Amino acid sequence: MNYEEVMKLALERGFYFPSCEVYSDANAGFWEYGPSGVSLKNKFLELWRRELIRRDGMMEIDGSQIMSKSVFEASGHLGNFADPIIKCTKCNSTFRADRTIAEIANIEIPESADLIEFDNAIKENKIQCPKCKGDFSSTKKFNMMFKVGIGPQEEEAYLRPETCQSIFVDFPRLFKTMRGKLPLGIAQVGKSFRNEIAPRQSLLRLREFYQAEIEVFCNPGRLDDVEKFAEIEKTVIRVQTDGDPISMTCKEALESGTVPNKFVAYYLGILTEFYEKTGIDVSKSRFRKLGDKEKAFYAEVAFDFEVETTIGWLELVACNYRSDYDLSSHAKMSKEKFEVMDNDEKVLPHVFEISMGIDRSLYTILEHSLKNDEEHERMVLSLKPYLSPVHVGILSLVKKDGLKEKTDEIFLNIKRKYDAFLDHSGAIGRRYRRLDEIGAPFAITVDHQTLEDNTVTIRKRDSMEQSRVEISKIDSILFDSVGFP
Amino acid sequence: MNYEEVMKLALERGFYFPSCEVYSDANAGFWEYGPSGVSLKNKFLELWRRELIRRDGMMEIDGSQIMSKSVFEASGHLGNFADPIIKCTKCNSTFRADRTIAEIANIEIPESADLIEFDNAIKENKIQCPKCKGDFSSTKKFNMMFKVGIGPQEEEAYLRPETCQSIFVDFPRLFKTMRGKLPLGIAQVGKSFRNEIAPRQSLLRLREFYQAEIEVFCNPGRLDDVEKFAEIEKTVIRVQTDGDPISMTCKEALESGTVPNKFVAYYLGILTEFYEKTGIDVSKSRFRKLGDKEKAFYAEVAFDFEVETTIGWLELVACNYRSDYDLSSHAKMSKEKFEVMDNDEKVLPHVFEISMGIDRSLYTILEHSLKNDEEHERMVLSLKPYLSPVHVGILSLVKKDGLKEKTDEIFLNIKRKYDAFLDHSGAIGRRYRRLDEIGAPFAITVDHQTLEDNTVTIRKRDSMEQSRVEISKIDSILFDSVGFP
Ligand SMILES: [Zn+2]
Ligand SMILES: [Zn+2]
Repeated sequence: MNYEEVMKLALERGFYFPSCEVYSDANAGFWEYGPSGVSLKNKFLELWRRELIRRDGMMEIDGSQIMSKSVFEASGHLGNFADPIIKCTKCNSTFRADRTIAEIANIEIPESADLIEFDNAIKENKIQCPKCKGDFSSTKKFNMMFKVGIGPQEEEAYLRPETCQSIFVDFPRLFKTMRGKLPLGIAQVGKSFRNEIAPRQSLLRLREFYQAEIEVFCNPGRLDDVEKFAEIEKTVIRVQTDGDPISMTCKEALESGTVPNKFVAYYLGILTEFYEKTGIDVSKSRFRKLGDKEKAFYAEVAFDFEVETTIGWLELVACNYRSDYDLSSHAKMSKEKFEVMDNDEKVLPHVFEISMGIDRSLYTILEHSLKNDEEHERMVLSLKPYLSPVHVGILSLVKKDGLKEKTDEIFLNIKRKYDAFLDHSGAIGRRYRRLDEIGAPFAITVDHQTLEDNTVTIRKRDSMEQSRVEISKIDSILFDSVGFP
Repeated sequence: MNYEEVMKLALERGFYFPSCEVYSDANAGFWEYGPSGVSLKNKFLELWRRELIRRDGMMEIDGSQIMSKSVFEASGHLGNFADPIIKCTKCNSTFRADRTIAEIANIEIPESADLIEFDNAIKENKIQCPKCKGDFSSTKKFNMMFKVGIGPQEEEAYLRPETCQSIFVDFPRLFKTMRGKLPLGIAQVGKSFRNEIAPRQSLLRLREFYQAEIEVFCNPGRLDDVEKFAEIEKTVIRVQTDGDPISMTCKEALESGTVPNKFVAYYLGILTEFYEKTGIDVSKSRFRKLGDKEKAFYAEVAFDFEVETTIGWLELVACNYRSDYDLSSHAKMSKEKFEVMDNDEKVLPHVFEISMGIDRSLYTILEHSLKNDEEHERMVLSLKPYLSPVHVGILSLVKKDGLKEKTDEIFLNIKRKYDAFLDHSGAIGRRYRRLDEIGAPFAITVDHQTLEDNTVTIRKRDSMEQSRVEISKIDSILFDSVGFP
């Protein structure tokens, strides 16, 4: 299914929709999760916790979104986290210089290039405002952080543009009080904020978005001293260096030098295993190894985890070996100690970052799960049962003859434990279709026979197969089917 | 246990700590949850979902934190969400006028009073700057919302001061696409932001804080047409009108007119049942009925749910019957339709709000759960097992003789499913103490006998009772003990 079909589902079935939509001054780049979206997101994060955080024995923190100025002086965001922008001198519209030049003249200039390069390209190719054909001003830098003023003195602070900075800043306390031992993963889920010039495509380029970031702190001298590598050595990952993506085991990736050490290979392995469990088709994924021009100057090695969708390859996760760039910057700026002991060795840890975009991941899960079942004239969202926003629909065939009461009773017994949706009205076929569209793996229907023998019809989403089961069996059927793997 | 002891626990055991603490420009009023705090918070929210959201069949959404200007024009925050402040003309320090006057002259002036009242009180009582004895400027209004500029044109937008505004604004779409039926609860968990003049007491007055808000949309003509009232009619709530708090059943509260209708009584009932399950001592709680002066002008009836702690009564939840104030304001400002059909009647729904402070609730849970067990010279955090940050510690008695490997194997089998903490080092008694302090209900120890007969020692936190069990039984013991009620 394509982007438009997923968007239609999202809007009609409560996955996501634009923020403040009743107002004409609603800003672009802000979206809300509806009931189905929240439920899917919560389950996605529970899977993330199981397959990455708890599996690897990481810690999870939840830090402030507003952080003080020094943090972003140290991180470099205040100086460098800026887009090149151009403004039309006639209609005052603003555009990203790199994107506008790429779209109109088909010339690729990296966003970090000198501003004069953009100006030259605009002049040489006579690039004009796409809206009004006006001339552009010269290129300027536009910092993408949102500034806020704290207290009556309006002290300068910023909404974080990435969640990881609190992990770096909190590292000394966490390592000490939580009895840390290298390698140590520290993770955080939460909102980040970027003042994009041109937000677009709903969840795919937001100004306020969800990240799940993991920073693994390690001793750079022990990157092949990774016992748990054995867990994933046979796990197949897809890696792209120069040509097409190639499937290989983590062991092969290591031995061929495609991945530099066991430490990095281990995390690429468990990340792939995690995405496999989300229902994303990982045969359409790749770890794209970034070249020297693309990766940040401090990154020794960088892979983008990308997945193919109908709108192209989407970057879902950035995996960066960031060396000691972050901790040494904060140590220098704060004058605090960030070194720790690893056995008898004092080290300033290096960091391997696994920075996941949650919103894009959810979009991709929806796109890869949505199917048009033409034979039965229905759309089916074939989500993994443990990710389904609704585990089960509980339906009364008709409301009368005591069927409503019986249905309510079944609902009452399971509603705290499972995400159940009670539905008394409408044609039964249409109710099934709606449950199919939000991915409910089961529908349970109460009919007149139920009153006689305490059985209900249970219908499976994917096969549409129906069978009669005893009411007393419902809990165990659900328990076995919708639990996490 | 008192505030200082809870704070010590929080800092030393990873519950919470100040944000950006390595930097000298760290702003007051911003705190981070550490690993123990995140785990407790996630479990608290899961309980909230079970006992309020799923129990009542509500919807949950997750909206943008940055919202457009019109939203807060309609809500009244742009005009009225302001504190009276005074500034010292000598040292430039800023204070809240109402609090300073109350502290120095013991005069209570409501924060919403005319500014001239504060000026007069300052003049008459010769109130001076507590820091430098300087004179104060005249009182001004300070809006507590954080402003942000969107895009290169810096369009005016705000960080939401409460989560509920997206629920109101999104109501028409949600009611329609999710096939809503009155009464309908819509809930949201998330960050809100208030630029407090004087944040204080760690989690108790934050500038960035977590709310869990529920807005129940209802037909004002049908507030006693509440079938599910039967579920809670015998539930005991504590209500304070004029004198001391009085324990009464929801039915008694209704019949005595203390609570105006079944609809409100139902929600006070399930809210009390929820807090009972958090481990907070609800015999120390009260629904304090607000008088006309205290409650907002649009609120027909308002109860603050407060709990007694060592630093006084803490307001954990505000329960407000807000009439149609919110929907009619947004309808007027946006010119969109907010009426819906209730059976054959067209109504603009009224709203009953249950606005919960998560951070304060977590503080109260910690204070009510922390015990000094003098007999055994230990501090014990007697959390409900389903709320414990760590379900079980997995310890090796010593690292050698293959005990480490055996312990790792046990850990490996349960670590995805439970919050388990693996610990190989230190004196076993100290390891037990540490687990007691983070509230782990169980500790499992692997010793030499384990290698012979596959049994381990299991120790219970509260009784300190130890017994030997087979390794194969661990999963079912944990499953039965740490699951939600
Ligand atoms: Zn133009
Ligand atoms: Zn002063």
